[in-house]
Amino acid sequence: MRATVIHAPGDIRVEDVPEPEIIKPTDAIIRTVVTCVCGSDLWAYRGLEPVDEPHPMGHEYVGIVEEVGSEVTSVKPGQFVIGSFATSDNTCPNCLAGYPSNCVHREFMGTCQAEYVRIPNAQGTLVATAEHPADELLPSLLTLSDVMGTGWYAAKAAEVRPGSTAVVVGDGAVGLCGVIAAKELGAERIIAMSRHENRQKLALEFGATDIVTARGDEGIARVKELTDGVGADSVLECVGTPEAMQQALHSTRPGGNVGFVGVPHGVAIDGQELFFSHVGLRGGPAPVRAYLPDLIGRVLDGRINPGKVFDLTLPLEQVAEGYRAMDERRAIKTLLKP
Amino acid sequence: MRATVIHAPGDIRVEDVPEPEIIKPTDAIIRTVVTCVCGSDLWAYRGLEPVDEPHPMGHEYVGIVEEVGSEVTSVKPGQFVIGSFATSDNTCPNCLAGYPSNCVHREFMGTCQAEYVRIPNAQGTLVATAEHPADELLPSLLTLSDVMGTGWYAAKAAEVRPGSTAVVVGDGAVGLCGVIAAKELGAERIIAMSRHENRQKLALEFGATDIVTARGDEGIARVKELTDGVGADSVLECVGTPEAMQQALHSTRPGGNVGFVGVPHGVAIDGQELFFSHVGLRGGPAPVRAYLPDLIGRVLDGRINPGKVFDLTLPLEQVAEGYRAMDERRAIKTLLKP
Repeated sequence: MRATVIHAPGDIRVEDVPEPEIIKPTDAIIRTVVTCVCGSDLWAYRGLEPVDEPHPMGHEYVGIVEEVGSEVTSVKPGQFVIGSFATSDNTCPNCLAGYPSNCVHREFMGTCQAEYVRIPNAQGTLVATAEHPADELLPSLLTLSDVMGTGWYAAKAAEVRPGSTAVVVGDGAVGLCGVIAAKELGAERIIAMSRHENRQKLALEFGATDIVTARGDEGIARVKELTDGVGADSVLECVGTPEAMQQALHSTRPGGNVGFVGVPHGVAIDGQELFFSHVGLRGGPAPVRAYLPDLIGRVLDGRINPGKVFDLTLPLEQVAEGYRAMDERRAIKTLLKP
Repeated sequence: MRATVIHAPGDIRVEDVPEPEIIKPTDAIIRTVVTCVCGSDLWAYRGLEPVDEPHPMGHEYVGIVEEVGSEVTSVKPGQFVIGSFATSDNTCPNCLAGYPSNCVHREFMGTCQAEYVRIPNAQGTLVATAEHPADELLPSLLTLSDVMGTGWYAAKAAEVRPGSTAVVVGDGAVGLCGVIAAKELGAERIIAMSRHENRQKLALEFGATDIVTARGDEGIARVKELTDGVGADSVLECVGTPEAMQQALHSTRPGGNVGFVGVPHGVAIDGQELFFSHVGLRGGPAPVRAYLPDLIGRVLDGRINPGKVFDLTLPLEQVAEGYRAMDERRAIKTLLKP
């Protein structure tokens, strides 16, 4: 089959590789319907994470079940399924506590930019829809595999509540999905920090009430002007850099909350500064699986349309251009058709 | 009047100083009924915080109002009052959001180990009791000025809920009050980490169900054994050292919460480690004022008896021995009688 392999920073190729097979009785094999490129894939592409040897890429997927292992009874061949980028058994103490992305049997997906994918922990990971969804819903359903669920978690971790004020740091696909989540969870004011006109437009369409283009101290000052001088109730940190984390922590009111979902690179938090800020902080790989039933419903109802974050669609064969366009910020997010 | 002054690490004296006076119309002057030495006073005493010049000490107090400024109408001379170590107007956005210890007009107390004390922001800071409480209640009421309120905040920040499992890191007065708070908030299992027999006894009396004497990796392993292998729902970090913070973070289950109330000294938190832990973190100077009405009620009802943390009572003149006894861990906490 055809699959994406990274050989070195900047060197993404589509190659012939063996089709995946059932290895454990808890596995399933799916045929990928659509997949995509994630902002976090760019860490390796940009050389900010080491690429020690060539390896497959991709962790977002929707597909048709081809085959299931002997212990998988919850889905069956032919069904359309969505799953999380982090697999989970859905029965361990962490899954039951609402954190399937910290399942004791978790395996992170990493081979999804391909025609077929092996899904470990398939029983707990995959959610089937009642029927094969219409083509126009596929992009939105695909976002539930990661970015929309991650934006949702950012908003939940930041404790967005009805009537609250939220700031979203980062205007990538996750940040834009964070705007949707803040809106759905009832935020009254949603301040999107963005410097890119097309992303600002999408943020406003998704529910942002204010756009702040300034960054650093100026950006913080602007947020405070908009929030009684004290900062926002909830801040969604959707980048993962030290600058973004500082932006987030200093934009939050005492007693407010930061939800951080950008994988931190070089981020260290000073204990005393955090202490005196009174800001609550929670992050991590989003427990996407826990949100799937709810979010699938919202997509099928037409209530949310996170698929709009895809502004470039390419055949899988052109995945390299998909990475390049995102790296150069010509695209917010690239959808790939195997 | 007689007042405590620190001249250098280890050098605590009682001296004659001028009586405080009303400076602002929002001030009050109280005559100290009882005051005490805080674990955080030991940072300077031990030379872990600089003592650039001689300065007064003490931030915990109950007293009788002597005089009020022209804008203070909520308390009047002759009343018995309790207030927080952090003064607050109780009207600013941060006060209204439940964080009076981050009041925009906050001034930290620091002159309370003395016969008389000036209280800034008296209107918002002081809470009067209906009558002068019985002598045997004074120690418990005094703890509400800081340590009991701080233990309460640790439990609230760690989101202790009915039926949950809580770990308390630190067996000083705040940690012991944290045990009381966890019990009152309904924790089913309360694991106190302590190596000192007298403190273990008090922790058990206050509601601890388990004692862990091990520290570091062994202590973490012991907590996990007691908590389904995943860690506790809530961990109260009541020390402020890097070791204590690591102990707390690693003793918490994914999705659980750490409330940290020991003023951090040298604590840095790795963003990526916090991210993958899924642990929620909130700390800060406790919003003691917000808890006073509730906690005063619990003390007057005899429901809680946090005054038991005082195992040494001295006249103010012997304050130096009070510090020494705590520094040498001969005393948990020293009560001072002016």
